[in-house]
Amino acid sequence: MMALAAPAARADVVVPDRSLSQWNGEDGYRLWLRHEPLEGAALEQLRAFNPIPGTPASPESETLGIAESELREGLAKLTGGSIDADRPRGVIRFDCGRRERGGDGRFRVTSGARAIRISGPDHLSCLYGAHALLRELSRGVDPATISLDETPAMSLRLLNHWDNPDGHVERGYAGRSIFDWWRLPERLDRRMIDYARANASLGINGVVVNNVNASPLFLTPHYLPKLKRLADAWRPYGIRLYISARFSAPRDVGGLPTADPLDPAVKAWWNAKADEIYAAIPDFGGFLVKANSEGQPGPQDYGRTHADGANMLAAALGKRGTVIWRAFVYKAEDETDRVKQAYQEFVPLDGKFAGNVIVQVKNGPLDFQPREPFHPLFGAMPRTRLMLEAQVTREYLGQASGIVYLAPMWSEVLGTHTGRGGTVAQVIVPGGIAGVANTGSDRNWTGGHFDQANWYAFGRLAWNPALSPERIAREWAAQTFSREPEFLDAIVPTMLASAGTVEKYIAPFGLAHLMGTGHHYGPAPWVCDLARPEWNPCYYHRADKAGIGFDRTAGGSDALAQYAPSVAARWADPAQMDDRLLLWFHHLPWQHPMRSGNTLWHDLVARYGQGEAEAGARSALWARLADHVDYRRHAEVAADLATQEKEARWWRDASIAYWQSLNGLALPAGVRRPDHPLDWYKAKTFPEAPGQ
Amino acid sequence: MMALAAPAARADVVVPDRSLSQWNGEDGYRLWLRHEPLEGAALEQLRAFNPIPGTPASPESETLGIAESELREGLAKLTGGSIDADRPRGVIRFDCGRRERGGDGRFRVTSGARAIRISGPDHLSCLYGAHALLRELSRGVDPATISLDETPAMSLRLLNHWDNPDGHVERGYAGRSIFDWWRLPERLDRRMIDYARANASLGINGVVVNNVNASPLFLTPHYLPKLKRLADAWRPYGIRLYISARFSAPRDVGGLPTADPLDPAVKAWWNAKADEIYAAIPDFGGFLVKANSEGQPGPQDYGRTHADGANMLAAALGKRGTVIWRAFVYKAEDETDRVKQAYQEFVPLDGKFAGNVIVQVKNGPLDFQPREPFHPLFGAMPRTRLMLEAQVTREYLGQASGIVYLAPMWSEVLGTHTGRGGTVAQVIVPGGIAGVANTGSDRNWTGGHFDQANWYAFGRLAWNPALSPERIAREWAAQTFSREPEFLDAIVPTMLASAGTVEKYIAPFGLAHLMGTGHHYGPAPWVCDLARPEWNPCYYHRADKAGIGFDRTAGGSDALAQYAPSVAARWADPAQMDDRLLLWFHHLPWQHPMRSGNTLWHDLVARYGQGEAEAGARSALWARLADHVDYRRHAEVAADLATQEKEARWWRDASIAYWQSLNGLALPAGVRRPDHPLDWYKAKTFPEAPGQ
Repeated sequence: MMALAAPAARADVVVPDRSLSQWNGEDGYRLWLRHEPLEGAALEQLRAFNPIPGTPASPESETLGIAESELREGLAKLTGGSIDADRPRGVIRFDCGRRERGGDGRFRVTSGARAIRISGPDHLSCLYGAHALLRELSRGVDPATISLDETPAMSLRLLNHWDNPDGHVERGYAGRSIFDWWRLPERLDRRMIDYARANASLGINGVVVNNVNASPLFLTPHYLPKLKRLADAWRPYGIRLYISARFSAPRDVGGLPTADPLDPAVKAWWNAKADEIYAAIPDFGGFLVKANSEGQPGPQDYGRTHADGANMLAAALGKRGTVIWRAFVYKAEDETDRVKQAYQEFVPLDGKFAGNVIVQVKNGPLDFQPREPFHPLFGAMPRTRLMLEAQVTREYLGQASGIVYLAPMWSEVLGTHTGRGGTVAQVIVPGGIAGVANTGSDRNWTGGHFDQANWYAFGRLAWNPALSPERIAREWAAQTFSREPEFLDAIVPTMLASAGTVEKYIAPFGLAHLMGTGHHYGPAPWVCDLARPEWNPCYYHRADKAGIGFDRTAGGSDALAQYAPSVAARWADPAQMDDRLLLWFHHLPWQHPMRSGNTLWHDLVARYGQGEAEAGARSALWARLADHVDYRRHAEVAADLATQEKEARWWRDASIAYWQSLNGLALPAGVRRPDHPLDWYKAKTFPEAPGQ
Repeated sequence: MMALAAPAARADVVVPDRSLSQWNGEDGYRLWLRHEPLEGAALEQLRAFNPIPGTPASPESETLGIAESELREGLAKLTGGSIDADRPRGVIRFDCGRRERGGDGRFRVTSGARAIRISGPDHLSCLYGAHALLRELSRGVDPATISLDETPAMSLRLLNHWDNPDGHVERGYAGRSIFDWWRLPERLDRRMIDYARANASLGINGVVVNNVNASPLFLTPHYLPKLKRLADAWRPYGIRLYISARFSAPRDVGGLPTADPLDPAVKAWWNAKADEIYAAIPDFGGFLVKANSEGQPGPQDYGRTHADGANMLAAALGKRGTVIWRAFVYKAEDETDRVKQAYQEFVPLDGKFAGNVIVQVKNGPLDFQPREPFHPLFGAMPRTRLMLEAQVTREYLGQASGIVYLAPMWSEVLGTHTGRGGTVAQVIVPGGIAGVANTGSDRNWTGGHFDQANWYAFGRLAWNPALSPERIAREWAAQTFSREPEFLDAIVPTMLASAGTVEKYIAPFGLAHLMGTGHHYGPAPWVCDLARPEWNPCYYHRADKAGIGFDRTAGGSDALAQYAPSVAARWADPAQMDDRLLLWFHHLPWQHPMRSGNTLWHDLVARYGQGEAEAGARSALWARLADHVDYRRHAEVAADLATQEKEARWWRDASIAYWQSLNGLALPAGVRRPDHPLDWYKAKTFPEAPGQ
């Protein structure tokens, strides 16, 4: 018989992952907006401002009301609700003009001993300013020293959702879609507000709600009330709603016999459709279009150009909105080198797009691989507004496993000089930046807790491409996990190195597109029998007994010629170039001598091994950080890192086994042999793989 | 310029559904386990026991540790953490023997002025007792008066999940599956613990984790570690893991040329498979099998009987587990009356099933319709263990819209006398009861907040079929929403009437199976062109110019003869019978005189109207209860009730329009005409409908 009586102290008598205290506990839902109480000097400094949650006069707008709530509740959390009524008070003021929205987002935060002032041209800028102030305070900055004057680098900062109406997310690794089209418009999920709040905290100002492989449903009257409800909910957060438009919609759902963009009835249908949408959603953002790519319909079906198609839609939207036309196109008919096609199709159209058309270009010319050169279209269409498309979801970069922080990769692209008048970041200023979202129904939004960092970093870089990945990682980790220096000093370098780790075991030396078919999960470099040549991994690695790599020099596909000469020169000589792109541009013998003094084969095997070793080291490091992180999130990240360790070993072993089957070379001395024979890896199947 | 300074009181300055206080606020996740603080006399009474959360000695088992945690944390919440150290203390004790599990679940809770004692034969019974005590306290019962002595009526109390490995839930209306097969075994979602906890609070003791339309994946070595991780997590909560087994697995994944249950290689494969499973999961529950039904493979593919198939699997499990074999079978070849087939196939097999086989029978002979007579197999297989299959998810009862509380329907079935030695509840004692789960990834688990009541009621009735639906509703609502009497007095009668409302507008007078094809959403009585006769709504209503209904008397299909004579007699005479089954058993002229004095047509139209009116009244009532319910849950239920109102009107109007197209009859005087012509209803499509 056991008595449950007196003693005061509490403890978890069951194993922690059963603990009731985890019920509704820290689960990642609050993202980087936790505003955990400050301690020590930071708390004292903030308390000097004595930010008592007050009841302001009725706010002048919904947006200003939200800004006030954010600030009041954020400050209350940061101070742990502590109030010292006897102390002289500092004051925090908004000075935001009379308009709710319409400015460029610029805000200022100025502080002195007795006051902090958040100002801007409109209420939305004050919402941005409130979040910026809270971000600084959450990092532990002394409020008296805060001085911010920020203007976003680009006017369009969008998320693209590849979400289907049935709730499936293409390349989604965090559960199903966050959009509940079935219950809308009657029920608006609370998550739609929290999502807008998180985006507003970063300055993201537009969301494309459906997949670029677009269902025409979104252009039917049935969906308009659903879209309107969302747009109404997001408007006070400064987020405009966009949809992906299926180019053949006039035929699919409009009852017309054609979708030819030069057909008057087609034009009339789109004009009427745009008017119908704007009547319901006055600030509708516009259409994102994937046309004549991977089986999607488009203007070329009627012998028209991308410009014909885009301009027809642009005319329907008029000054009210924007057509975003994707440059991600490739065709089976033109098969010299897939990576050349976008440039070939789009450069001749430079100057032919209407003013409210933006061409959206992926960071690299292939498809979000761990390592690609920047896309040659950047800088090559000076009379066209270009937008950068980055992939926040990690389709080819390990999906939801482990820690892979993408800011270094994006930052590198943004900072790259095109050789044609500025960096990529400069080239896209008139266009903007779009990220393919990684959100889903998982409680922590992004599947892996550290994938929240990619959403965060995308938003921060969209606002200011000059921010360093290190700064962003530190901001994010301090707000999301812990602001203890010993934690941050350990986790930030780990995050910064993490994308490089994946690159080493998935895409060493610029190898690309070697993943499993369909689900894109795990290695399958041996696949060579798919219907279209450019779907096959073997198309990309071109490995045989003698060598490996894709010759894109003048002697090969000459994709190199699509870059400015100064850029092309950097990549023309295997002996001089950044070896992370070596096999992207060159086909080389296995015995090719590397700068290291070893052969290519030796260094390739070694690089796989480094990737595996780094993944293992990351797991070990995380285990040592257990005291800094709440139990549940620590355990979940540990599980994801264990998965990543297994995947790194699998990529290494399967890849090496396959290359050996071609080149017949022995492993360098002392190198571990693959765990299984090649056929074992070939036989693996993944029927429940997500995101297909 | 606006200053955010002093004033103390807080208020939501933004509209409530944007309020930050909703962030991580009351969202339904905690189900009926909220344990909101008591007030007044109930609090004083409980404080006399002064249940300070204590640190007991190291618990003797995981299960006992969980029981102690539940009690300690539940009491802390109920008392709002209030402690009065000066007051003499009562004590709460466990007395549970030394075994962790293995008993029949019986527990006792006895109380006096100075002590409450929870006792039982093993630790699991004390976990049940702890939950029962907390349930009583949460209702506000004076602890000194609590005296419980409970033993579950049936030993098997299972949930069946129709969840697929890819996360889709067949007939699921609450998002995707709660099971993350992709991340298992590395990552165990916290929800798997919370799910077990909720089930344990009701006494549910087994879970079939995958769809009866079963993927053979669950029988592969790849899935075994996933299943093991789940089973290990659930074991301390007294929950055994079962899987749905695909009968053709030896062929699908075993490499054998056949799945013939009499083939020695097939037997050997299943024997080895069972051994493999038990080596990993020593308390594996067993196999649920849907065989030779709706295209699923089964023993009849080889000329064998259901008993041959079931007994072969039962031999493989041996004493270690149970084969649950579904009686839900029907074939295109035998088309006199689909509802007769299960009886015809199974009654001849009575006494032929092995001792560890249970035949699982749906509550009615068709398929979970809003109104069916009880299944004639109950009572007709005295030498076979039968299990009742109830559908907690509301496939045919409005899916996730509005409030539809199913306990009255289940209670009625359980209490029905079979005419062959006892009630249904008595007949299934040797077998048990299974509920098709309604859980999903939605934050509130069940899509609609009130659908939590169906999960709760299923568990409570499985434990004690004699509990009244009223008692269960009151228990649930008090724990889940508010124990204020004015709230309970309003909501409980509403819940009790709610299934009847759906019946009136979907299935008046026992009409059945008139829903849309595939998604089973909304009315489609006009559908008559599907490949198999018994898939068509027109097969069931048999309406024409002259009359409506399915003649199941001796003059018709004579399904009536499958019931005991005393039961059949009750339903033989349209003039005497319960009119809620009138058209289930009889084909009658539209002008048939009802006991009301009106014609059938008149009363049918009126009943649709009653359903619509009741749905509207429910919405209005809920609006008046706003002060009793937190904002978010109130708003979400209100939205769902608005949807239900629309659906009730739609079912009524579409049905009446269709019947009029057949019978040419005018509407009774003063009755509202359908909003749209019949073709408008026929043209509706639901491409994003869930649960298909």
